[in-house]
Amino acid sequence: MVNVGVLGATGMVGQRFIELLSDHPKFEITALTASARSAGKRYSDAATWHLDSQIPEAVQDMVVVDTDPKQVEDVEIVFSALPAEHAAIVEPQFAAAGMGVASNASAMRMEPDVPLVIPEVNPEQLELIETQQKNRGWEGFIVTNPNCSTIALAMTLKPLYDEFDIQRVYVSTMQAVSGAGYNGVPSMAILDNLVPFIGGEEEKIESETLHLLGDFDGETVTPAGFGLSASCHRVPVVDGHTEAVFMEMEQDFAVEDVKSAFRNFKGLPQKLGLHFAPPTPIIVREEDNRPQPRMDRLTQKGMAVTVGRVRKDDVFPKSLKYVLLGHNTVRGAAGASILNAELINEIM
Amino acid sequence: MVNVGVLGATGMVGQRFIELLSDHPKFEITALTASARSAGKRYSDAATWHLDSQIPEAVQDMVVVDTDPKQVEDVEIVFSALPAEHAAIVEPQFAAAGMGVASNASAMRMEPDVPLVIPEVNPEQLELIETQQKNRGWEGFIVTNPNCSTIALAMTLKPLYDEFDIQRVYVSTMQAVSGAGYNGVPSMAILDNLVPFIGGEEEKIESETLHLLGDFDGETVTPAGFGLSASCHRVPVVDGHTEAVFMEMEQDFAVEDVKSAFRNFKGLPQKLGLHFAPPTPIIVREEDNRPQPRMDRLTQKGMAVTVGRVRKDDVFPKSLKYVLLGHNTVRGAAGASILNAELINEIM
Amino acid sequence: MVNVGVLGATGMVGQRFIELLSDHPKFEITALTASARSAGKRYSDAATWHLDSQIPEAVQDMVVVDTDPKQVEDVEIVFSALPAEHAAIVEPQFAAAGMGVASNASAMRMEPDVPLVIPEVNPEQLELIETQQKNRGWEGFIVTNPNCSTIALAMTLKPLYDEFDIQRVYVSTMQAVSGAGYNGVPSMAILDNLVPFIGGEEEKIESETLHLLGDFDGETVTPAGFGLSASCHRVPVVDGHTEAVFMEMEQDFAVEDVKSAFRNFKGLPQKLGLHFAPPTPIIVREEDNRPQPRMDRLTQKGMAVTVGRVRKDDVFPKSLKYVLLGHNTVRGAAGASILNAELINEIM
Amino acid sequence: MVNVGVLGATGMVGQRFIELLSDHPKFEITALTASARSAGKRYSDAATWHLDSQIPEAVQDMVVVDTDPKQVEDVEIVFSALPAEHAAIVEPQFAAAGMGVASNASAMRMEPDVPLVIPEVNPEQLELIETQQKNRGWEGFIVTNPNCSTIALAMTLKPLYDEFDIQRVYVSTMQAVSGAGYNGVPSMAILDNLVPFIGGEEEKIESETLHLLGDFDGETVTPAGFGLSASCHRVPVVDGHTEAVFMEMEQDFAVEDVKSAFRNFKGLPQKLGLHFAPPTPIIVREEDNRPQPRMDRLTQKGMAVTVGRVRKDDVFPKSLKYVLLGHNTVRGAAGASILNAELINEIM
Repeated sequence: MVNVGVLGATGMVGQRFIELLSDHPKFEITALTASARSAGKRYSDAATWHLDSQIPEAVQDMVVVDTDPKQVEDVEIVFSALPAEHAAIVEPQFAAAGMGVASNASAMRMEPDVPLVIPEVNPEQLELIETQQKNRGWEGFIVTNPNCSTIALAMTLKPLYDEFDIQRVYVSTMQAVSGAGYNGVPSMAILDNLVPFIGGEEEKIESETLHLLGDFDGETVTPAGFGLSASCHRVPVVDGHTEAVFMEMEQDFAVEDVKSAFRNFKGLPQKLGLHFAPPTPIIVREEDNRPQPRMDRLTQKGMAVTVGRVRKDDVFPKSLKYVLLGHNTVRGAAGASILNAELINEIM
Repeated sequence: MVNVGVLGATGMVGQRFIELLSDHPKFEITALTASARSAGKRYSDAATWHLDSQIPEAVQDMVVVDTDPKQVEDVEIVFSALPAEHAAIVEPQFAAAGMGVASNASAMRMEPDVPLVIPEVNPEQLELIETQQKNRGWEGFIVTNPNCSTIALAMTLKPLYDEFDIQRVYVSTMQAVSGAGYNGVPSMAILDNLVPFIGGEEEKIESETLHLLGDFDGETVTPAGFGLSASCHRVPVVDGHTEAVFMEMEQDFAVEDVKSAFRNFKGLPQKLGLHFAPPTPIIVREEDNRPQPRMDRLTQKGMAVTVGRVRKDDVFPKSLKYVLLGHNTVRGAAGASILNAELINEIM
Repeated sequence: MVNVGVLGATGMVGQRFIELLSDHPKFEITALTASARSAGKRYSDAATWHLDSQIPEAVQDMVVVDTDPKQVEDVEIVFSALPAEHAAIVEPQFAAAGMGVASNASAMRMEPDVPLVIPEVNPEQLELIETQQKNRGWEGFIVTNPNCSTIALAMTLKPLYDEFDIQRVYVSTMQAVSGAGYNGVPSMAILDNLVPFIGGEEEKIESETLHLLGDFDGETVTPAGFGLSASCHRVPVVDGHTEAVFMEMEQDFAVEDVKSAFRNFKGLPQKLGLHFAPPTPIIVREEDNRPQPRMDRLTQKGMAVTVGRVRKDDVFPKSLKYVLLGHNTVRGAAGASILNAELINEIM
Repeated sequence: MVNVGVLGATGMVGQRFIELLSDHPKFEITALTASARSAGKRYSDAATWHLDSQIPEAVQDMVVVDTDPKQVEDVEIVFSALPAEHAAIVEPQFAAAGMGVASNASAMRMEPDVPLVIPEVNPEQLELIETQQKNRGWEGFIVTNPNCSTIALAMTLKPLYDEFDIQRVYVSTMQAVSGAGYNGVPSMAILDNLVPFIGGEEEKIESETLHLLGDFDGETVTPAGFGLSASCHRVPVVDGHTEAVFMEMEQDFAVEDVKSAFRNFKGLPQKLGLHFAPPTPIIVREEDNRPQPRMDRLTQKGMAVTVGRVRKDDVFPKSLKYVLLGHNTVRGAAGASILNAELINEIM
C-alpha cells in the first residue's frame, strides 16, 4: 500500500477525497492536514462531515496536523484540496520535501512545467514531471487536474477533436452549488433563483480546455487551435454540472459517427484498468430529457460523463449540439486527482 | 370601458390574465370561459387559484361558460389562454363571431395572415388584420404573441438588429417551471435537478424570433436573415426565464454602444403611453451577478426585460455575450396579449 | 431461489421494488405486471425509470403482463405497489390463486384478519395468516406493511413503549414529495413553498401506529392505549420523511435511558440476520442538527431510522422531544414489504 | 414627518426596514448606520441589495454613518436591525442620547423594564417606557418586538387566550431561510433537505409568547399560566414561517367559535387605523391545503397572519389543531418594529 495524505482535509473536497479513498486497494490515508485551528484534534472533532455517507472509521480518530510537510511523515502522495492562494505557497513545499502532490487547486495549473492532466485525455503531459523536477530541484512533484466544468467538457471534446475538425465551440453551463464549497452559495441566493456568474470560471474553461487538447512536444504545450467561448451559471442543484454545447465543424458529419466516437472512447486508465477509471468514460443517452444531474451524476461511481441530446444543429451547417453532465466533486475534483495519482503510480 | 373575456380562464395563464386585468383602466372582464366541467360554476368554485394574489373580487362570483362564442355576449376582445390544439379550433370561431382574439396560444402564430406581434418590436405587422379579415371573411380577428422565451429574446435583439449587423446567435435558456403550466413539471423531476429539454421550444425560438424581426411589406413577412440556434433547459425556478446569449456581429462594436442601444430602446407602446407598457423595456444591470429570476422578474410589473453581463467575447472577434431575463407568465404570456390588445384598441 | 413478481411494476414504488430486489440472495424477479397499456411491452419500454440507478439488466427485456394472477405463473410471492383501489380488487385474487402477497397498499391494512406488520415491531401478528387462509379459503395470503410515515414513527415508539409508559404523543411530519408518487406533487406546488396537508395521512398514522403496538391474542389486535395526534406537511425534499415528536410519559425518566432504549433496540429480523434487516434499526445522532433527510436517509441502505435531538421537554414534566427520519420509499415502502416477505420466507 | 434612522441598515432586516419605510406617510429616513467598513460610503455602494424590489431612490445616495448616536443628528426614532450582541451595547446609547429605539434585536427583550410588544396583543406594556426612563435616566427609550416565529404564534393565541381557557400548546415550526440572515443558511445545507434545529429559537418562543400574553400590573409582567413547548425546523423556503399548533383547552369548544375568534380579532392598531396595521390581522382559510408560504406570506402587505386547517383533534378531547403562517421578515421583524413605532408615535 502507498501511504497518502489529504491536504485541506476538513473542507468539502477534502471530505470527498477521504470518502473516495476509504476503500482504495492501493492508497492508504496516513495523514490529514488542515488549518492551525483544527491541528491537534481528532478528525471527527475537527470536521463537520457534509457528505451523505458516514466518516470512514479509519480516519475518525486520526489526529489532524498543520498543512506543513514537516508534520507529514512517510507519505508518498498528498492530495490537495487547498484553496488556490494557500496551495500556491504550500504545494511547492510538499514537492520540495519529496512528495508527489496531486492537486485539485487552480494555483499551479497553467505553470509551463506543471502537468494539467485528465488521464483519458492527455496522459502524455505527465512527462513534464521530469522537466519540473529538473527545473525546480524537487524530488517530489506537482500534478494538477483541471477545473470541474472543464474536465467534463474536455472529456467529451477529446474523441471529437481526434476524429473531426472542430472549428468553434460555445458552452453554457448550469453548475451545482457544491462547486463553490459548503458555504459558497447562500440559500438566499439560489432558492427559486439562479446566478448567471461564477468568478473566473469562464476564463478557466476557455484556457484549460485548449491546453488539455493541445500538442505536447515533450517540453511545452501548444493549445488546441479552435475557439471556445463559455457562459457560466449557478443553479439550485446540489451536485452535478450540466453544460449545453454548440459546436461548428470544418466538415459535415453524421450524428451517428459523433455518438460512436463518444461511445467508443477509451483512454489509458481504461486500458490499464485503474481502480478509479470508469469502464465507459462517456455514456450516451438516447432519451430526449437526459442527462439530468440527480439521475446521472453517480453513473459509474460518479467518474463517467453522461451525454445526451446529441443532434445536428438545424440552423447552422456542419454544426452539432449536445448536453453533457459530470459529477463536479467526484469526476470534477477529488476523483480526478485520485485518477491522476493512480496513473502516475502505475506508469512511473 | 371595453368588455373583454378570458378563454381558458381557470388555468395558470388564464389566472394571470384575470389578475393583470383586474384593475385595468380600459378593459373590463365580463366573460370567463373554460371546459364543460367548469361551465355553470362560479369562478371561485371552478378554479383553484395558484397565484400569490387573491382572486379579484369582481370575478369571484362570475359564472364560467363554455368556450363557445355563442355563450359570450357583448364582448369585444377575448384573451386566449387555451392549449394549442383547442385554440386552433375555437379561436377562428370567436373571430368569425366578430370578436378580436388576442391569443397566447401557438396554434395560429405562423399563419401568414395572422400577426405575430410584440408591440415594441413589430407593431407594423398588425396591418395583417385587414388581410386576415378579407381572406377569411371575419368581422373579428386573431392576433398572437410569441412564445415566452422568444419574447424576452426578441426584445433584446430588436435594438441590436436595428443598429448593428447580427451574423449569428446562439442562445441557451434556463426556463422556469411555470412555463409548463401548473401540473407540467412534477417536483420529482426538478428538485435538486434540471431537465435539458422542453418539447418544441427550440423550434419556436428559432422560427418566431426571425419572423418578429423580419421585413414586412404590408402583406408578407420575410424572416430576418441571420442564424439563431437554441438549446432549452428547465430549471427549478418558479417564474422567470433566463437566457445566455452568444452573438457574432458583422462589424466590430463598442460594448458601451450595445448597452446604450438596450437602454435607449423604446417602442410604440412607450410612445403611446399604453397602460401595460413598461417605461423602460430593457433594463441594463451592471452587477456581475444579475439578472436573477427571483430578484428581477417583477421589474416594472414584470413587463420589462432585464439584461446583464453585457460583455465582449474574449475568444471570438466581433462577438458579444449577455444574459437576459423576462417574466414568462407576465411579459412572456398574459401581459404580452394584453399589450397587443391595448395597442390595437389605441390605433385601430 | 424463490420466484417473485412485482405488481404495479412501472410506478415509483414498483421501481424501488425492482431496484432493491435486483441483487437479492433469495428472491428472483420472474414476473412484472402493470396496467393494460404496458402489458406486452419490454419493461424498459414500458417504464420511464425515475431512480438514480440504472434499470437492472435482468428485467430490462422482461415482458410486462396484465395485473392478473392468470398471467403470472410459477411465482410464490408478489410484491404489490398497486394504488389502494386497485389493490382492493386484485390482491385477493392473487392470494386466492395461491400466492403470498406482500403489499405496500393501504387497501387491506385494517382488515381484522390481515397482518399489518413491521418485522422489528410486531412479527407475532403474522400468525393471522392462518386465520386469514381459513376465513377466506385461500392457499395464498396477504400481508401488509404500514404507511411510510407510520413505519418510521412506530419503530421509534416500540422500544419506548416496551420500557416506559407512554401517555400521549403529538407528531408533526415534514414529508418528502416522493411519497405522493412521481406525478403527485407539481413543482409549482412546492418550490419555495410547503403544503400543510396530505390527504388521509394523519388518520393512517393515528390508527396504524396504535394497531402495530397493540396486544395480539392470536386472533385479534387490541390497539395500544395511549393517544397519538398527527399533523402532516409536505416539504420540498425528494426522499426522506422527518417527524418531530412530543411525548408525555406516565413516570419521569432519564434521557440517557431513552437513548439506550433506542440504541439497543433489535427485533426478530436482526436476530435472524435477514438480508434486508438493518443491523441497527435505530441510529441515535448526538449532533444538534441531525437527522437531516439528504444526509441520513440512506443510512444502512435506507432501512434504519435515524433519531436526533433526544431531549427532555423543559416545559412539561415527564415529557420527551425528539426528531426522527426514515427513507419513505425504502424503509417506508418497498423495503418494508421485502422485509416482511423475508421474515415469512424464513419462519413459515 | 418624523425623522427616523435605521441601525444596521445594510443587512437583510435593515433592507426590509428601508423598503417598508420608503413610502411611509409619517416617517422619513434621514440616517442609516452600519459597521465601520461601510461608514462613509453611499448606501448603494455599501449595501448589496437582496430584496426583489429596487433600492428606494431616496436612500441610494445617503451616506452611511457609524452606529453611534453622535453620528446621528435630528432623529427621533431609530429602528434597530443589529445583531443581539451589538444591540446590547449600542441600543442603550441611543436611548440615553434621547432617541426612541424600536428594536428587532433579542438583546433587551426580557429586561423587566423594556416593553416586548405586539401592538395587537399587549400594547399596554408600552407603559413600561416611563418606568424604563425613570430607572435608567434616559430621555429616549427602547421598545422591542418578539422573535419572528413568536409574533405569528402569539397573534393567533391572543384571541383564543381571551375567549377560551388554554391548557397546553405544542408547536412545531417550519421556518424560512431568510430568518437566519442572508448568509445564515448555506444552500448545501438546505437543498433537498431540512435542518431540525435553530439555535435558541425554541427557548425564545416558549418564553416570549407567555410574556406577551401575561398580566401587566403597570410595573411587571406575570407570564401567562399555560405550558407551551416548541420544536423548530428550517425548511427550503425563502420567506414565511409555518407553524403547526396542537392545543388543549380546559373546556370543550366549537370549531366555529375558534374561527370566529380568529376572524373577529382586532387590536389597537386596527382601531387607530395605523398605516402598517393589517385590516384583518388573522385571515382564516377554509381550503384543506392552506396556508402556504409562497401563496400567503404577502397577504395584507405581509402584515397579516394566515391560519388554516382549524380543526378539532380527533384523538384528544377538548383539543384543537391548526396551522399558521406569517411573513418572518415583514410581520416577524421590520414590520413589527415599525408598527410599534407607529403606535408609540400615535399614543404617546
